[in-house]
Amino acid sequence: MERRQFLQKAAIGSVAAVTAGSLIHAPAVHAKKQIRWKMVTTWPPKLPYLQDAAELLAKKVELMSDGQFKIKVFAGGELVPPLQTFDAVQKGTTVQAGSGVGYYQAGKAPAAQWFAAVPFGLNAAGMAAWYEFGGGLQLWEETYAPFGVIPRPGGSTGPQMAGWFNKKIETAEDFKGLKMRIPGLGGKVMAKMGATVILCPASEIFTNLERGVIDATEWIGPLHDQLMGFYKVAKYYYYPGWHETGPFVEFVFNKKAYEELPVDFQAILDAACAQVSNWTTQGFNFGNGRALDELINVHKVDVVRLPDSVLAELKSHSKDAVAEIAASDPMAEKVNDSFQKFQKLIGPWGEISEKPYYETLADQYPLKG
Amino acid sequence: MERRQFLQKAAIGSVAAVTAGSLIHAPAVHAKKQIRWKMVTTWPPKLPYLQDAAELLAKKVELMSDGQFKIKVFAGGELVPPLQTFDAVQKGTTVQAGSGVGYYQAGKAPAAQWFAAVPFGLNAAGMAAWYEFGGGLQLWEETYAPFGVIPRPGGSTGPQMAGWFNKKIETAEDFKGLKMRIPGLGGKVMAKMGATVILCPASEIFTNLERGVIDATEWIGPLHDQLMGFYKVAKYYYYPGWHETGPFVEFVFNKKAYEELPVDFQAILDAACAQVSNWTTQGFNFGNGRALDELINVHKVDVVRLPDSVLAELKSHSKDAVAEIAASDPMAEKVNDSFQKFQKLIGPWGEISEKPYYETLADQYPLKG
Repeated sequence: MERRQFLQKAAIGSVAAVTAGSLIHAPAVHAKKQIRWKMVTTWPPKLPYLQDAAELLAKKVELMSDGQFKIKVFAGGELVPPLQTFDAVQKGTTVQAGSGVGYYQAGKAPAAQWFAAVPFGLNAAGMAAWYEFGGGLQLWEETYAPFGVIPRPGGSTGPQMAGWFNKKIETAEDFKGLKMRIPGLGGKVMAKMGATVILCPASEIFTNLERGVIDATEWIGPLHDQLMGFYKVAKYYYYPGWHETGPFVEFVFNKKAYEELPVDFQAILDAACAQVSNWTTQGFNFGNGRALDELINVHKVDVVRLPDSVLAELKSHSKDAVAEIAASDPMAEKVNDSFQKFQKLIGPWGEISEKPYYETLADQYPLKG
Repeated sequence: MERRQFLQKAAIGSVAAVTAGSLIHAPAVHAKKQIRWKMVTTWPPKLPYLQDAAELLAKKVELMSDGQFKIKVFAGGELVPPLQTFDAVQKGTTVQAGSGVGYYQAGKAPAAQWFAAVPFGLNAAGMAAWYEFGGGLQLWEETYAPFGVIPRPGGSTGPQMAGWFNKKIETAEDFKGLKMRIPGLGGKVMAKMGATVILCPASEIFTNLERGVIDATEWIGPLHDQLMGFYKVAKYYYYPGWHETGPFVEFVFNKKAYEELPVDFQAILDAACAQVSNWTTQGFNFGNGRALDELINVHKVDVVRLPDSVLAELKSHSKDAVAEIAASDPMAEKVNDSFQKFQKLIGPWGEISEKPYYETLADQYPLKG
């Protein structure tokens, strides 16, 4: 910052001397270091509303900084493997920025999961409010500080679906022995239900489902699930996505690189994150709506609700799973306390505002047109 | 723009000559006109999350532009009367920016109401998605173009409450002869229900309710209703707010002033709007949650749900009221078509995602603790 301020002052002084005689309004002139960053993501090229969002962020930053701050974006695997995004940003040698999901860092920072999704956690609106007004973002920064990384919310993919199933689920018993692809905390809960959790790369899910290697899989939501073509090989599309009720993706920045930015560029980067986070959340609301319509009316998918008794069982196991992780790590416990407290604070307001909206005020649209 | 480009080139040339010898990395140097705007709002000074938001917008813009673009903010009445905000921005002589709500422009542009709130319309998440992905913002710009004004979403105050009542509502018949303060489209619907709609300035509502001049009033939501002290003089606090299910406030800019901004400052202003819009929406989610908790647990307010039969009647009259306005004005009809189509498109997705969240996945928090 010292060097920049010096440059700025020097430049202002010089220009004032040169231009003062010829201009009526002497303009302020600022000298800026040209900033060039690289951003890596965990997303495949062109993945709607996710890889797109990283590119939109770069575009906004360039536009707002009048071309002085440019970010070159690489999709997963183009510069580093998808799941090494966070590590590359932490290192900060080649890469200053990244886009991914907090729960990919569960191994090194269990607390990171709450900033992405925990089963039966807050929905997207609640997550966003928690980050800003419940101390969530501050805790997120605290969680990533030991890694020299600064997080910013990257938007929500919306509530997930419970998944694609080739076996009908009527009672909690039906999960016993079910072979399901479901990673993370959702997988832990499924194991408690008696399911056999099977993990496989994204590229193999379709074939495994088709061949019966797995009986079920979750993915994201209608928009991305449709792109994966699961409707061709699965009988039932179950909702609601109890395991990720309002998952948020994240932008991450190398802390040293971020702190070396001029304060106006820091503000530009933060505002671009907020703008793009909005855009992603809204894009998923629209995109999931449109894809669901096509899945039901074009592909004749059987969309089925998990029975309440099954959801009650899943909730009970989820509370145990979340409590176990919170108990295993002091930072996770601190974050969980804040999260639960906030969910409880805004809970009754949701009960009397958005709940009656969906139950009564919004038109009841039949799932089958 | 011509003049600015000339200044910029002149300045770059001059500085390069002066500094090239002394610097290793010759910085880019940009000359910018110092922009000074005035913003007027319809809000009282310090009104939480609304007047605050206008001030936050100014702060963000100043920070991102490195002090080159400053907006001086005036609360309602400080420079122009609160309800002349839009007119002042339209004129653009003293004032370039404003903050208010679209339905205040209903008289001159009936279509403006859809961008703020129509009874049984979209909730906040749906409104935001419609603006960005359903053509809503484009239609909003088209609606304000004849006035030389550019709109941007300013955030949602969240679902409203149905209002404070001194008479119990058990059937639709109970509205007959009820004296209620409720402006706009909500008032039109109330009149169809047989109520006597009474309008009065904000400052007189409390006394009118206390003295029985009115039997009921709606205002905003728990956060702002608590500040008005209505809980001291009303027996029942009814929900849900069927008349404004996800109302959005707006930022408005004089079109000529906006278009004369350098493109980077336009981008900065737009990003600041998005960032602050988020902040306001989240602030209301948090603030309403906290205020509701206090109203129930400290002030022992009786929070009551309108019976379903009453809501059904309100919905039927609301559809008529909305259709009447749409039929009265070609732009309103065009906007209504887009709005209804979007609400229908994302409706089934809400049914299987957020609806089960509020019904089943979120903990059921008792309204009385």
